[in-house]
This record gives sequence, C-alpha cells and structure tokens, in this order.
Amino acid sequence: MLPSLALLTVALLCDKSVGIRYEPNWQSLDSRPLPQWYDEAKFGIFLHWGVFSVPSYHGAWFWYYWKGPKPVPSVVQFMQENYPPGFTYADFAPQFTAEFYDPHQWAEIFQASGARYVVLTTKHHEGFCNWPSKYSWNWNSMDVGPNRDLVGDLASAIRKSTDLKFGTYHSLLEFFNPLFLQDMANNFTTNDFVARKTMPELYELVQRYKPDIIWSDGDWEGNSTYWNSTNFLAWLYNDSPVKDTVVVNDRWGTDTMCKHGGYLTCHDHYNPGKLQKRKWEDCSTVDKGAWAYRRNIKLSDIESTQDLITQLVEAVSCGGNLLLNVGPRRDGIIAPIFEERLREIGQWLRVNSDAIYSTRPWLFQNDTQQPGVWYTSKKNTFGESVYAIVLKWPRSQDFLLASPQPSPQTTVTLLGYSQPIDWSKGKLGGLELTIPVIPFDQMPCQWAWVFRLDKLNNV
Amino acid sequence: MLPSLALLTVALLCDKSVGIRYEPNWQSLDSRPLPQWYDEAKFGIFLHWGVFSVPSYHGAWFWYYWKGPKPVPSVVQFMQENYPPGFTYADFAPQFTAEFYDPHQWAEIFQASGARYVVLTTKHHEGFCNWPSKYSWNWNSMDVGPNRDLVGDLASAIRKSTDLKFGTYHSLLEFFNPLFLQDMANNFTTNDFVARKTMPELYELVQRYKPDIIWSDGDWEGNSTYWNSTNFLAWLYNDSPVKDTVVVNDRWGTDTMCKHGGYLTCHDHYNPGKLQKRKWEDCSTVDKGAWAYRRNIKLSDIESTQDLITQLVEAVSCGGNLLLNVGPRRDGIIAPIFEERLREIGQWLRVNSDAIYSTRPWLFQNDTQQPGVWYTSKKNTFGESVYAIVLKWPRSQDFLLASPQPSPQTTVTLLGYSQPIDWSKGKLGGLELTIPVIPFDQMPCQWAWVFRLDKLNNV
Amino acid sequence: MLPSLALLTVALLCDKSVGIRYEPNWQSLDSRPLPQWYDEAKFGIFLHWGVFSVPSYHGAWFWYYWKGPKPVPSVVQFMQENYPPGFTYADFAPQFTAEFYDPHQWAEIFQASGARYVVLTTKHHEGFCNWPSKYSWNWNSMDVGPNRDLVGDLASAIRKSTDLKFGTYHSLLEFFNPLFLQDMANNFTTNDFVARKTMPELYELVQRYKPDIIWSDGDWEGNSTYWNSTNFLAWLYNDSPVKDTVVVNDRWGTDTMCKHGGYLTCHDHYNPGKLQKRKWEDCSTVDKGAWAYRRNIKLSDIESTQDLITQLVEAVSCGGNLLLNVGPRRDGIIAPIFEERLREIGQWLRVNSDAIYSTRPWLFQNDTQQPGVWYTSKKNTFGESVYAIVLKWPRSQDFLLASPQPSPQTTVTLLGYSQPIDWSKGKLGGLELTIPVIPFDQMPCQWAWVFRLDKLNNV
Amino acid sequence: MLPSLALLTVALLCDKSVGIRYEPNWQSLDSRPLPQWYDEAKFGIFLHWGVFSVPSYHGAWFWYYWKGPKPVPSVVQFMQENYPPGFTYADFAPQFTAEFYDPHQWAEIFQASGARYVVLTTKHHEGFCNWPSKYSWNWNSMDVGPNRDLVGDLASAIRKSTDLKFGTYHSLLEFFNPLFLQDMANNFTTNDFVARKTMPELYELVQRYKPDIIWSDGDWEGNSTYWNSTNFLAWLYNDSPVKDTVVVNDRWGTDTMCKHGGYLTCHDHYNPGKLQKRKWEDCSTVDKGAWAYRRNIKLSDIESTQDLITQLVEAVSCGGNLLLNVGPRRDGIIAPIFEERLREIGQWLRVNSDAIYSTRPWLFQNDTQQPGVWYTSKKNTFGESVYAIVLKWPRSQDFLLASPQPSPQTTVTLLGYSQPIDWSKGKLGGLELTIPVIPFDQMPCQWAWVFRLDKLNNV
Repeated sequence: MLPSLALLTVALLCDKSVGIRYEPNWQSLDSRPLPQWYDEAKFGIFLHWGVFSVPSYHGAWFWYYWKGPKPVPSVVQFMQENYPPGFTYADFAPQFTAEFYDPHQWAEIFQASGARYVVLTTKHHEGFCNWPSKYSWNWNSMDVGPNRDLVGDLASAIRKSTDLKFGTYHSLLEFFNPLFLQDMANNFTTNDFVARKTMPELYELVQRYKPDIIWSDGDWEGNSTYWNSTNFLAWLYNDSPVKDTVVVNDRWGTDTMCKHGGYLTCHDHYNPGKLQKRKWEDCSTVDKGAWAYRRNIKLSDIESTQDLITQLVEAVSCGGNLLLNVGPRRDGIIAPIFEERLREIGQWLRVNSDAIYSTRPWLFQNDTQQPGVWYTSKKNTFGESVYAIVLKWPRSQDFLLASPQPSPQTTVTLLGYSQPIDWSKGKLGGLELTIPVIPFDQMPCQWAWVFRLDKLNNV
Repeated sequence: MLPSLALLTVALLCDKSVGIRYEPNWQSLDSRPLPQWYDEAKFGIFLHWGVFSVPSYHGAWFWYYWKGPKPVPSVVQFMQENYPPGFTYADFAPQFTAEFYDPHQWAEIFQASGARYVVLTTKHHEGFCNWPSKYSWNWNSMDVGPNRDLVGDLASAIRKSTDLKFGTYHSLLEFFNPLFLQDMANNFTTNDFVARKTMPELYELVQRYKPDIIWSDGDWEGNSTYWNSTNFLAWLYNDSPVKDTVVVNDRWGTDTMCKHGGYLTCHDHYNPGKLQKRKWEDCSTVDKGAWAYRRNIKLSDIESTQDLITQLVEAVSCGGNLLLNVGPRRDGIIAPIFEERLREIGQWLRVNSDAIYSTRPWLFQNDTQQPGVWYTSKKNTFGESVYAIVLKWPRSQDFLLASPQPSPQTTVTLLGYSQPIDWSKGKLGGLELTIPVIPFDQMPCQWAWVFRLDKLNNV
Repeated sequence: MLPSLALLTVALLCDKSVGIRYEPNWQSLDSRPLPQWYDEAKFGIFLHWGVFSVPSYHGAWFWYYWKGPKPVPSVVQFMQENYPPGFTYADFAPQFTAEFYDPHQWAEIFQASGARYVVLTTKHHEGFCNWPSKYSWNWNSMDVGPNRDLVGDLASAIRKSTDLKFGTYHSLLEFFNPLFLQDMANNFTTNDFVARKTMPELYELVQRYKPDIIWSDGDWEGNSTYWNSTNFLAWLYNDSPVKDTVVVNDRWGTDTMCKHGGYLTCHDHYNPGKLQKRKWEDCSTVDKGAWAYRRNIKLSDIESTQDLITQLVEAVSCGGNLLLNVGPRRDGIIAPIFEERLREIGQWLRVNSDAIYSTRPWLFQNDTQQPGVWYTSKKNTFGESVYAIVLKWPRSQDFLLASPQPSPQTTVTLLGYSQPIDWSKGKLGGLELTIPVIPFDQMPCQWAWVFRLDKLNNV
Repeated sequence: MLPSLALLTVALLCDKSVGIRYEPNWQSLDSRPLPQWYDEAKFGIFLHWGVFSVPSYHGAWFWYYWKGPKPVPSVVQFMQENYPPGFTYADFAPQFTAEFYDPHQWAEIFQASGARYVVLTTKHHEGFCNWPSKYSWNWNSMDVGPNRDLVGDLASAIRKSTDLKFGTYHSLLEFFNPLFLQDMANNFTTNDFVARKTMPELYELVQRYKPDIIWSDGDWEGNSTYWNSTNFLAWLYNDSPVKDTVVVNDRWGTDTMCKHGGYLTCHDHYNPGKLQKRKWEDCSTVDKGAWAYRRNIKLSDIESTQDLITQLVEAVSCGGNLLLNVGPRRDGIIAPIFEERLREIGQWLRVNSDAIYSTRPWLFQNDTQQPGVWYTSKKNTFGESVYAIVLKWPRSQDFLLASPQPSPQTTVTLLGYSQPIDWSKGKLGGLELTIPVIPFDQMPCQWAWVFRLDKLNNV
C-alpha cells in the first residue's frame, strides 16, 4: 500500500471538486484537496526582495533588529557608522532602484534551475509592497524607489516565457505598522489593521495577479480569528479567480502552523527527515544566514550545490517540496554566486528529473542500512519504478541496498549512463549493485546519482 | 446700528451655548456662534510646509503640475534637468530633513509679527502628514524625512511661549491617493477614501493636538456628503475636546464654500473690499506666486510690507481676518526675507494695535471721498472710537475725511504721536484734519498711520 | 590743497605709463599708479561662493573649523548630527549643484545695486576652483558639482550686460593642500606648492579671464618671497593682457599687508574712519557673521540698509571704497534678503550718485561738530562741490555744519529735492541750513541725505 | 641544454649585482637581472578598484566610454537613465564608500588562492589615487569617498598576515587630466603632466609603500622619453628602497612594450602558447568582459575554474606567470563568485603546487601528440622532475605521452594519489601511462591532474 494514498485521494477528489463550497472553518477548509500540480512540482524558488535589500545587511528583519525591542548591536553599529543620526528606515526606499531588474532574465535562470514554481515576497514584515497597492500608498515599489510593479512584471515574465507557477509571499503582520501595533496593544480585541490593510491587500493581490500560491507568513502574533483567515480562504477556495488552482500554506494564525491550511511549512528550514502525513515544504535559503541579500556575505555562508541537492532529495523522498530562497540585490540583480548554484541544480535535474518530478514517496524513505541513500517512486506503464538516490559515489564496487527486494526481472539503470547496471541478490536480502568504473569526465553528473530500480518485489 | 450685530449676537449666544447639541446638517451647524477669540484676533500666520518644500519649485502643487493631467512644462523640465528619469515624488521625502527646525524660534517670529494665531499645513494635497498619523504610515514626517512630529512640536512651542492660537490646515483630498482616485472614478458613489483616510486622520488630529482652528481645504471634488463633513463637524462641536473653542472655515464640500461652516474663505486671496454679512478671512501669501517656499523666487515676487499692511487693514475694515502665508524651507528655516516682512508688520502693529485687534467694522469701511482711508471701530469706556487708517501720508496739510461727522467734543489722535491733532469741520461736512509736520525720523511708524477719532457724531 | 593729490598724480602718470617696466621688488611695484577707474568706482560687490556653500554653515572657513587644529564644537556637532561618520569635505562637492545659477540675473542685481565692480571668489582657502583650472583637476566647478565654468560665465554676463568691472578673488594658500602643508612643515624653505599650484593658477586666471582686479588673500602664512608675489606682479604689470587696467590689493605676504601692492585692505572690515594716505578698501559683508551663505542665518545677523549706506559713506569720505559681500547659495541663488539690501542701496545711489562716484575726500571727512555728517567733494565746471552726507534726518529745523565756510555765493541743494535750501552763516562760523518740511512720502530718499554745497570758501 | 638558461644566468648575476649602477637607457636597464622571486611565484592576483567601481558598469574605462572621443551608446544610455543630466564623473567619488573593506579578509582569500603576489591599481586611467597622494589632492581615496589609504591598508595586511609580495599598478596617463591633454595637444613636446604628476606620484608610491612590483600601464600615447621612464627606472634600480627586489613590467612608452623593462606583458591577456625568450606575464581576468567590477555581469561572462587553471598551466609551461584579475566592489567586497574561483584554484594548487611554483619550462611545452598536456620541470636532489599536466582526464586506460622518453629507472606519480602509476614504453617511443581506476570521490583533485615523471632520458 502506498503511504501517499492520501495524496492520491486528493487528486481524485479534485476532479469532483466542482460544486463543492467550503465553509469558513478549518474543518471544511482543510478538506479541500491540494491541487495536484504542487505535489508534482517538488522544487520552487523563493525570493526575498524589499527595502531591506538596500542596506542589505543582516537580512530581511533589518528594521526589527535596528529599531525593535531588542536591537542587535551590529545592526545598530552599522547604522551609526554609515548613516546620519536621523536616518529612518523609509529613507532607504528611494535607493531601492532596481535599475537592472530584468524579470525575463530571472525567469530564464529559474527555468534553468529546474524549479517548477517561484514565490516572491510581495510584502514582507516591513510592509513595503512590491506592487502598487491601493492600500499602501507611497510605501510600495511604484510610488517610491523602483517606480515599477515588481510583482506584476515578474508574474508576466514567468508566465510568458516559462511554464513555472507564480506564487506570492505575503506577510500578515507589519512590524511597525501603527494600526497593527494598536491592535496588539489592545490584545487583538480590535482588528483595524486586518480590516484596513491586510485583507484589502490580499484580495487585491489575488485579483490582480491570480497567484498559484499564497505563501502566508507573519501570522505568529495573532490567531486565525484575528487575521480573518478562514473567511479569506473560503472566498479564495469558493469564489476567487484562482479557486481551482491556488495552493496555500499553513501560516494563518497561531493556531494553524503545522496544522491547518494547504501544505505544511511548520517552521523555516523544516526538514523532518521522515515521511509526513500531509504535503509539506522545506523553505530554505542558499545563504545560510539570511533570506535577504547581504552585501557582506561570506563564501562560507553559502550552501554548496552538494548540500542543496541533498536537501532537495531528502525533502522529496519524505513527501515534501523544497522552496529554495535567493535574495536579489537592490539593483535587481541575482548575484552570480546564487545564479551558479541554481544552474548547477538545474544541470543535475536535467539528468535526474525522472527521480524527482511527479514522484511519490516509496515504502522506505532512506535505505535501512546504506547511509546517504534516499528513495522516490513513480508509476510507469510496466509497474512502478523506484529511484535510489545516492548522495556519495560508492567507494567500493559492490554496493548493497538493503531496502529494495529484487525479483528475477529486476533491472537497474544509472540515470544518464547508457549501460545497464549489474546486480545480485544480497546474502541477507536486499539488492547488491556492481558499481561500474566510469572515467572521471564521463560521469553522468556530479553531486548525487540515481539508480532506477524496475520490477522490484516490494513496490 | 452696528452692522456687526450678527457677530455680537454670536458672542452672547456663546455664553448660553452650554447644553446645545448640533445636528449633522448645515442649518444646525451654521447656527453655532463663532468663538469670539477668532474675530478679535484679526491676523494669523499661515504655513505651507511639506515634501513640496524639497524641490521647492513652483509651489505646493508641484506634484500635480508634474504628474497630473496637465503637466506644466517648466516643472517637467525642472525634473528632467535635475533628477534621474525614474525619480518619484516620494523619493523626495528623505530630503525633507528639517535639521534647523526650531519651533521656539518660529513662535518668537510669529509673536513678533503681531499675529494672534498660526495655521500649519498638517497635510496638504500631497497627502504627506506632518505628524505621525497612524493612517499615513511611512508617508509622514516621523517615518521619513524629518523623523519628527512637526505639528506637535510647533503646537507645543506656540502654546508654551506665546498666547497665539494654534490651527491645523488639513486637505480633504489627496491628489494621487489611489483610494481617492477610485472614489472619483466611481463618481463618488463610494467613499472608501473618506472612511479609511480622511476621517480617521481628522479625528486623530483633533484628539492629538486640540487645534483652535481646523482650516479645511481640498474639498472641491466632492460634496459635503461625500466628505462626511456634517457628521464630523457635529462631533467636533458637540463632543470633541475643542468643542467650545474650535473655529472652522467653509471648505467642506462643493456645496459649502462661501456658504456653510464657520467663517468664510470663499477663495484664496479673498478680499471683497466691502463689508460681509459673515465673518471671513483673506488667506494670502507673502510670495505672490506660491504658497510653498520656492528656491528660485524673485524679489519682485515678494509682497512689500506696505502691501501686506494694506491687505490687513482692508480685511479688518470689512470684517475679515488676514491669514498671511509664508513657506518654510525643507531644512526648517523661515527665509529671512519673510521673517523681515513679518517683523515689520509687527513693528507697525505695536504702534497701531488699538486700531486692529478686537475692533469691529464701522458704519463706513473706507472713506467716501478720500482714497486710501479705511475705518475700524471699537467700544471704549467713553463711547466708541473710530480709527481712520491712512495708507499714504497726506501730501497736503489739510486732509478731509468725508465719512466721520464730528461733534464739538470730537478729539483726534495720531497713534504713536504725543500731541493732539487739530481739526475743523469740513465745509460740506466731514472732518478736516490738520496734518502736523513731523521730522522724518520722528514719524510714529511707516507704511500706514492711524488717526483715532473719538466722540464723533456718527458712531 | 587736496589731500588726494597723490591720486591725481597717479592719474596723470597713467597716461605716461607706456614704456615703464616694473622690477620685481616692492619699491618698483608700489610706484605703479593705481588705474583711475578703481578710485572712481567706490562701490563693489564681493561674492564668496564655493564648496562651503553646500553645508552653508558657519561660513567659508567651515573646513578649517571642522578639521583644522582647533575644531569649533558647533561645526563638529553639525557634522555629527547630519552626516555619516566617514563623510569628507570633498564629499560635499557633488551637492554644489548651482542649478539656478543665472549670471545675467546676478549682473542685473549688481547693476541695480549701484556697484561698479564685482569680485568673485575664484578659489577660496578650500582650494576649490570655480573655473576649470588645469592645476586643480577634479577639484573645480567643471569637473565636480556645478559642471560649469562659474567664473567665466559671470565674467561674460557682467561684461555683456553691464559696464561693471570684473575682479577675481584668489587665495594664495589652501588650508589642507598637502603640498602647502609640506612647505609649511619645511618652514617655507621649499615652495613646491607655489610653483606647482598657486602661480600656474594665477597666470591661468589672468590669461583666461583678464580680470580688472586681483583680490589676493590667504597670504598670512608666508612672506612675499615664498609666494613669489613680486615676480608675478612684475609680469602682471609689464606683460599681462591686463597690464594697463588691472588693480590689485595688498595681500601678497606677511610683509605686505597694509603696506605694499595696489590698494590697501589691511584687515577684513577695515574702516579706519579717517583719511588714509593711500587708496584703500573696506571689505565688509551683509551677513555680520560670515562671508559665505549660512542657511541658519538669523535676521538679526543681517546688516540693515541704513548701516550699509553708512559704511559706504564713511569709506568714500575717507578715500576708501566699499566692497560689500553677499554669499550665494549652493544652488546659485542670491538670497532675496541680500538682493533687497543691494537694491535698496541702489535706490539710494540713484538719487545720490553725484556725492559718491568719482568724488574725492574733502578737507574734512566728517563734520567737526555735527555728528553723523560726512563729506565728499568733486570738481565741477564752476569750481568744486562739497557733499555733506547726513546719516540721520535733522530733528531741528536749524542744522549747523561747522566745517564748511560759506561765501556769499554759496548755494545749497538737497539731492533729489527740487527747491534750494536756505542757509545762513553760523554765529561762530560754519553753515547753518534751514531744513525744509517735507511730507513723509515726498522725501527724496531714505537712510541718508545729501546736501550739495557749492561755492564754499574753503574748498 | 635548458631553454631557461637566461633565467638561470640572471639568478647568478643577481648575487653579484651589488655595486652595479644602471644608466638611464634601455640597454643598461634591460641588463638588470629580474629578481628571482618573481619567476618562482607563477601566480598573482590583480585588483582593479577605483571610482569606476561606483557605476560598476562596463568596466574600468567607464569614463572614457562615456565622455571620450567615441562614446559607447550603452554607457551613455546608462547615465541618461540613472543620473541627472549634469552629473559628472567626479560626482561618483563620494559613493566609493568601501565600508566593508577588510584588507585582512582579502589577504586571507588571496593566500587561500595559492597566489604568491598581489597587484592593486593604485591609480588607473581615471587618475584617482587609492592612496593619499600629495599630487592628487581631493582626487584620492583619503580625501573623498573611502576616507582611507586603500593602498597602504592592503600593503600592511598582506605583509602582516601572508608572505605574498605586494605590487602596485600605476597608470602613466590619465585620460582626462588637462595637463596630459595639453601635452598631447603639444605633440608631447611638453611634458608638464609627467613632471607635475606622474613622476612625483611614482616616487611617492615607491617611497611610501616599497612595492615589490611596479606594474606600469597607460603608456601608449607617448614614448619612454616623454614618460621619463629610463630616469625613473635608473633611480628605482640604483637608489630606491626597493632597488634589489622590485620587479617591473614593460609598459613604459610606445617604444618599450614587449621589448624593454622587466618582464614582458605585451598586451592584455597575453598568452603566446609557446616558450618566450624573456620572462613574461599573462594578465587576465575572471570576468571575461571587464577588469573592473560590473554589477550587471552575467554568469556566462565569468571564467570557469577549469578555464582559469588551464590559463595558469599554459602560462607556466611557456615561462610565464598568470596575473589573474578580480574587481572589488565599491563597498570593499570581493564578490563571492570571484572568491569561489580563487579558492578553487587554491584547492587545486594545494595538491599540485610542486608542478607550478619554482618550476622552469621543460624541453617541450606541450606534448607533441597528446592534446591538452603541458609540461613543467624542476631540479630535484636526484635529478630533474618533469610534470605532465593533463587538462582532461584520459578517457582510455592507456595514455601515451609522446614527448617524454623513459629510462628503465623512470617512475611516474600522480600528485595527490598514493600509488605509483604503471607505464610502458610506447611502440614508437614516448611514455605510455596506465591510468588507474579511481572512484569519483577519491580523485586527488578536479580540473587538471599532474603526473610527475622522474628519471626520464630526455631531461
């Protein structure tokens, strides 16, 4: 039996979903099947871009660490050393110039990375809207700084030149919005902020850009009642222009994280390492230390391609997606070091796509004996293929996989390599592969290798 | 009989006003007597200060003339020649630094000018709030630019070191606010903008700064129903912290100008030249061409002290006040040329205060024969004094005033001059003064001179 | 006998001067007659404009008071409060934008002021050249900031639309020029700075702009040998394109001030109050506290028109000229308050020009008894006129001048007034005027009045 | 016979060089032996940093392509789109902030790259000095922008924490220096520019920073007589504080390139591909398209580590050094993508250092038959080792090198691999290696591999 039956059921239900109306409560909303495209996509790109990209120091929470309740000394010092005393956060905005922003170039990079969706911060906790929101006048990318609809321009480019899905990150809270601070001071017995700002913006976003994902965030101060989340989602699922296709995450209030909504994100860098009952996503970032571009990043802060592919493989094996973040610069450039990481993942995926996209978790997620081996599976015309993804090239010629049980008809293929792989049955069970000798520059890829196992006994 | 009976009645009613509640309709609201201090004050200072003070070119409507429906070529050219192509209006805000803003120094200047009230643009048509409004986040003087509560700091300084009243100019509309533009596109069948922005701000302003005047403006696109004016004023008159003292003007919708509200302003530079039935105000500006500071102002654009005193005298004679504008600079300085004009008016008023403050219009406003002579009057213990204000020093020694009819007890005094003035009865009636010979530097003042006429027959 | 015989002789010598060559020593250089135009001009405008006009705080020595040996606390504080820590003085230069600089408008103002010459700081102690000097690359107004030849553009405008003379202020030293500091460290035994910078620049200035005046300054650290002054002046007088017309001052080294060169300046604001043997100049400034524009100037820091005319009159009476300074703003505007002062002096001069231009000191400079009365004189066809300039309008009708001794043919005229002035001989000598009664607005002028005395006995 | 005998001779002469004085002519100057350290070092880092790093667009010649005789449209357009019309090149300088400049961090990166020397642009063709030159006042990194001695700080850090040599790039010409333009207009019959600027600066540089290399450039407009090169070099070799150790290149005038001076650079990216008679250097850059940092660089513009190692190997085999350039950013950061390339070269060098440093060219530079194989050689205690550097891992197990002729005692070692390599004599001569099967992750390195051949017949 497949552990991913739940997901399958979902797919079936989807076909019947016409006519269903969801109620604004979690029981009803949680019953909505996740649109199938999301599970199949596996890999997305996350983009943190905003006014924080101007100082591009310390990360997307720059403002909070400068002016919040517990200032971070290095941030305070950075401001003292580089700006006049009265300089404000909003004073940064005109320097968010985006003069080199070429969304078609971005789209090309994302497609080359093998990602199947993109999620852009349309508004982070700073409250600055990357689109010309009616509800954030003069604190949006059209009115100050870029003088451009950053969200709309990326949505168009992505949709015009790729088949990637386009998602919108949106922070419910805004650290220093006085309406929010007032609600907070009122212990959330008022919700002026939600009524005047959050909700109008969310509706505007959906109607204007028809996002495939709403990646909600900034929910942690209030519960979903304060945030009006269930009402919004009921509208989104029942009546919005994206009701059939949109996917949302689980960050809709203190009572929802890792529990309600669409797929689960639980916490940043969520990578549970074992199969989960619901669809989930690991949002992670190429810069180990920050979501936003940091000008003074050290090379040692940047994940290696090896590590990033490992993250992707582990997530997919356990039923998750990987949403991998890079922070564009204030001038609209994705730093070459990030671009290189993304293109290298794409090189790997071009060889090994079969083991990733549209796969489902297998009986086993990682091998019971052999470390560094993760499994995925996929139905084919002749049954089911199992993919053993090996993160480290075997040091010995005989390489035992303990979890797969071969049948006499079992065949083994190394993706990207033309000849079949010899195997034998392990003495105590399992499948023992005979690793071929391949000259260095004829290896099908670097970083990880996939053995496709067909016609196993245990599928 | 006094033409200003209406005003007198108002004063009496005021005493009885405790317990009266006004209805949110113009008939009721218009019945409220104007608090007495306003009529007595006669002279106020108007201040146009905002983000437009950064380019400080062309005036307070800079944005409109740059980006509005009919751009002014010189404004467009100014931007092309001095800023990069993508520069936005909001990009100016960080340069609104106000580093030299010293509200105590301003208060001293205003007091020296003889003004009895000050009206500051808390928010002009650009929508930028000079106070940290909760409803204009990041588009206010605390969050961007000055990093300071410009309104509050001036209110405190004025109240601490002077006895001037403090008023707040407030624009109902905001040229480019998308919520306003949307209401306008809907032919004002919606009023999102008013509900979300204008009203919350006005209430906030009143509660926070307890203004003595609300100088409303920017009403001309919608009627008072759209602007919710009657409801606001009913609250203001009935329940606000300034219900007994606040004065408002007449700019509350297309149906109110010159008709409803507190005192009338009718149009900018309103100077009707004859007595009006209701209290009115001439808002005028030292820079003939603009309300906001213009860096490239020509000296010939600046009103002379002579002209300014003339305006004051004419307004007061006809039952009006003069609200005289100067535009502070982006760095918080009132340009010395403006300061000098204000101080010279103050010099004049120190000699002639008796003829201005707390006076009422007389039977005649200007002399029926002698040009350049205006009258005011005031009750004294021994009857009523009439003040003949002479704008040009008489060229001949015999100077006939046709309107006053002397009695045998009539005495004439030149304010600031120690000796009594001889007079005789005019051949065809009127009062013929014998102008004394006064050495140049013993003249009591420059610019205009006041003859106080006591115990006339026609008072 | 005229005390100004020396000046007369000079004029005669001038005609003979062709063929004379001056030696590079003070005895020879001092023997050169001062070109006549300078003495006749009486009144000039001084302009301090440079990078110091950007902070426009404290004055033209801003840099010195910020970074020099004895920093001024308010200047240091101003920088701390308004700029990042590492900000340098040269970092100000790009903000010296001069976008409103209209030299034709300046020329019109200067002409309206009645001035007969203009002296512009081509380079102040900061070393920044207001012309594209080959020897001050990237530290001049063409290469950074205005992107314009400020000197050349003013010279052209002045010469095209007025008959004013054009002079160039030039500082020998540069506070922080490392070559200068090195020479100083070497006790001026080296003169690299002079050879590489000062001299090439001075020659360039003269050849490029053919100035009518070289207003040398910044000489006080070295003597005229260090500065190479005598060699330069010998060239200037013998071979330069302006050899016949140029006028220089006395600031050419520690050994020259008030002693050698062209006319004497002795020290800033030099106003000796009595006749001097050599031609001199009082350089003074409308802003009492600074030569450069100060944004935060107080009105009380600004000289009144009364005081400025007093300075002019005193200087001219004692054989001096007045060089009156205003500091233009970084954007190229002469502040209206300064413009007004200049135009008011011009109004006064239009009435009283006869008593100022081309006059010579009289036997007496001020009246021996009557305070506030200063004399000038001028040869006419019928003899010599003496001008009694009265700074305060007489309070009594009889006004005794003790110094002039009338003859029976003596006539007295009030400039700008049509009727002759009655007079009588003083009981103890002198001339007793009968001051006419003139209605206030028929006075010929304000601020000071001139009685022309013709056919006196003592001329 | 060794082809590098000349080099050997040089080394011997060096020991005797005490007491030799060089004449200021090329014959004498060329006779100076090149200090031995330079040939042994093989690999250096080149740094282009200056005001051009502010726009960081198009490269180090930005100014020339913007304002020079043949403007490049994209550069002109970049300025039009992003800056106000009057913006000048010098206006960029204050934005050269270098706030993150940490020369110790740079030193660590350079050391990790395996480089043995560093050459920094102390002054490029823009004339901006990265040290506080007395001869470039206000156009140097102390007076404007960084407010720091960039050269001195790097020199100290390099010398304190590494054993790398420190070299100074210096441009003789300055594109827009008016003194230079004047000399050029005079057909170089004058040399004011050289006397006033170039020479003083060069002497200052040498005396202040005692560089190990003077990397001269910008010589192409004038000959070495104009540039005064021979006099300078005679001083440098005879009397300067670095006379025994300094190395110079060949860019000292139109008559010297590829001909006179120290080592030859001939032209940028010089890589002759065969042995040269004199020591030479290939200066190349990680960004294929520019020497300066370009913000909008594409990943495809960046050389791969593979290509860079290839360049190094080819240069060393043919008697050259590689000087590999990276352009730091205006904020003082070396972009991570460049850092990664440098560190990867360092990884390779840590395994293969023996084949690079202190080696000499061999009889053959590349193999006569096998493509992609380059040779170096080195004297050892037991004779001479030859290093065959293989740029592409052999595809077949038998790998014939045609140039080496084995003796029976010949041994073959793969650097970084513990076991000896089997070989046999080629049928037609040469050495046939038996390439071992090495599992992917046990390979000693990537990018290129070195077989050390000992006891060959033909050494």
